[in-house]
Amino acid sequence: MVVTQTALGDVRGREGFFHYREYSAVELAERRSLEDVWHLMVFGELPDTATRAAFAARVAPLRRLPAGLGELLPGLARAGGAGGALDGLRTALSLAGAARGTAPLYDTEEAARVDDALFVGAVTPTIVAALHRLARGLAPVAPRDDLPFAANYLYMVTGAEPSAAQVRAIERYLICTVDHGFNASTFTARVIASTGADLVACVVGAIGALSGPLHGGAPSRALDTLDEIGSPERIDPWIREHVLAGDRIMGFGHAVYRTEDPRSRLLRAVAEDFGGDLVAFAVQVERRVVELLAELKPGRELHTNVEFYAGVVMELCGLSRDMFTPTFAVARTLGWTANILEQATDSKIIRPSARYVGPPAPQPVPSP
Amino acid sequence: MVVTQTALGDVRGREGFFHYREYSAVELAERRSLEDVWHLMVFGELPDTATRAAFAARVAPLRRLPAGLGELLPGLARAGGAGGALDGLRTALSLAGAARGTAPLYDTEEAARVDDALFVGAVTPTIVAALHRLARGLAPVAPRDDLPFAANYLYMVTGAEPSAAQVRAIERYLICTVDHGFNASTFTARVIASTGADLVACVVGAIGALSGPLHGGAPSRALDTLDEIGSPERIDPWIREHVLAGDRIMGFGHAVYRTEDPRSRLLRAVAEDFGGDLVAFAVQVERRVVELLAELKPGRELHTNVEFYAGVVMELCGLSRDMFTPTFAVARTLGWTANILEQATDSKIIRPSARYVGPPAPQPVPSP
Repeated sequence: MVVTQTALGDVRGREGFFHYREYSAVELAERRSLEDVWHLMVFGELPDTATRAAFAARVAPLRRLPAGLGELLPGLARAGGAGGALDGLRTALSLAGAARGTAPLYDTEEAARVDDALFVGAVTPTIVAALHRLARGLAPVAPRDDLPFAANYLYMVTGAEPSAAQVRAIERYLICTVDHGFNASTFTARVIASTGADLVACVVGAIGALSGPLHGGAPSRALDTLDEIGSPERIDPWIREHVLAGDRIMGFGHAVYRTEDPRSRLLRAVAEDFGGDLVAFAVQVERRVVELLAELKPGRELHTNVEFYAGVVMELCGLSRDMFTPTFAVARTLGWTANILEQATDSKIIRPSARYVGPPAPQPVPSP
Repeated sequence: MVVTQTALGDVRGREGFFHYREYSAVELAERRSLEDVWHLMVFGELPDTATRAAFAARVAPLRRLPAGLGELLPGLARAGGAGGALDGLRTALSLAGAARGTAPLYDTEEAARVDDALFVGAVTPTIVAALHRLARGLAPVAPRDDLPFAANYLYMVTGAEPSAAQVRAIERYLICTVDHGFNASTFTARVIASTGADLVACVVGAIGALSGPLHGGAPSRALDTLDEIGSPERIDPWIREHVLAGDRIMGFGHAVYRTEDPRSRLLRAVAEDFGGDLVAFAVQVERRVVELLAELKPGRELHTNVEFYAGVVMELCGLSRDMFTPTFAVARTLGWTANILEQATDSKIIRPSARYVGPPAPQPVPSP
């Protein structure tokens, strides 16, 4: 069911391949910075040296919270919520949009729309990091203009400058999760955009969709599974028990990919660059799940998805498990905003229909 | 393009007819209370006397703001926003959901989902009214348990008990705008619901879609047009000038109805019950637009849509123009929440696709 056209990218499930614009997303993650990819998504091309510097200078000041939002954040953090950190991000970003006065996409010049898109992409990490620290009784750490996106993000979360290895690892994670075809949150953002609403309304809706267990998933669950298995000698019995019981194994299987998830392959390499016990254990679990599945359920191929190594990489970068989904949202916000900008160039409202399946109407309304 | 099934109702554009469940929405507005229609949407049937009393007792206490939200509302109202009152509602409802701890639809019992749905439907008027008063420097007015939904809403907005005529008029307006087929905001709510997110995430996304000029429209624009025309003798020259210039006449024309909008017919009758100069003037303008259009552009039929008399009715009920769209949101929230509950019974994620139309991929990624 095709609802719109896009030049932003695509997922080819059979080939185990996805791309941003005309470039392999994995190759971009290996060879380019997050800022370069962000620029590619918004403007349609990779920047040259001069454009790169101008783009960095343009987005760095947009990281700062708009006036009025900072004072309200502690109250929002206190309000908490069952949805976890995405609830807070949803509220705070909605407020940030109101405080900035993001204009409706409809009847707004493209330049103003791009300004709003860059603002939302730049300020989301600041909000995520501030809410995280406030929830732990820590003061928020202000963004630093001199650090690139990925380094500044880890810095605002932890309050300390991250290692070069951590920066490059989280940057590759962020790049490969910026966009992924027409998933439910991207679709939500584009439906809202098609009504001409302001850009923040679209992103707030997308965050809601991402918070759904059937979409955003939970990269922490795969790590929880590694914890539950606990040690190398328990790998085989644990897997046998759960495969035979027909349980879903967290971090394995994907709705679209019929091959290995290309993000999983990339993130395994990122994790292996770190090395260490956790990585070796994860690699061993992955190998045994695939092998035992071939033995116990022949013909049923199952591969790791993005969640499996994403959790390992984020843990190695110093992010706590409650920050995994918000960090995913930080990356995906860049993809959503590019999608919203693209949708804003189409003046048609996206309005599918539903089939009415209730009793024949009208029946007479009985008296009260 | 049919994306899902529904038993909540349908719009039959050629017949000029729409229904909630198996009943004509207009007939429901004429013969039933808002609470009865709300019950019908959520539970699938009109209540009898005992059920009606139990339902009223159940929803009245849900009108009160959850702990922690009241103190934050003045800050939210101060933050303002270009999107007007819907921005504030979006943020405040997002926060209300977090404060209440609305649970993800996925893996939640139906009873808990219904509780959340009734909470959102009941608390939205309180939030809308409080934000409106705070923005004007007035203290919010607490909800009253002893007043029905419609009367309590006008009371919280104005701080005074409305007349019986005003209550019945706004109640009929609210009933006939509860739902209207698979519009963009309802669709947004259902896409988010299909990910298993919490109910508030769905409604917050829907509010974003409703804030889009191509969806929520602006009932105040039709009233602005009446102001601009100003007096009976200016009606004909004003209409001739704008029809000949090919301008869109606010309050006329609808994407789906090929006949008169049934809501317009109902609201004209509601307005005529009030009587007075404004109503007489509106009726005269409507008649002359239709007549002059037949003369100037033969073959092009154009009828008033819901906006035309909605503005007149809300004005007569004492609502200021900046409250027209939020009042629409108050009604539509009841429809959205019923749609979300229905979507939650389907475990399939709504995930249409987009056609990639960019350059062939992959192209090699150039060096930075």
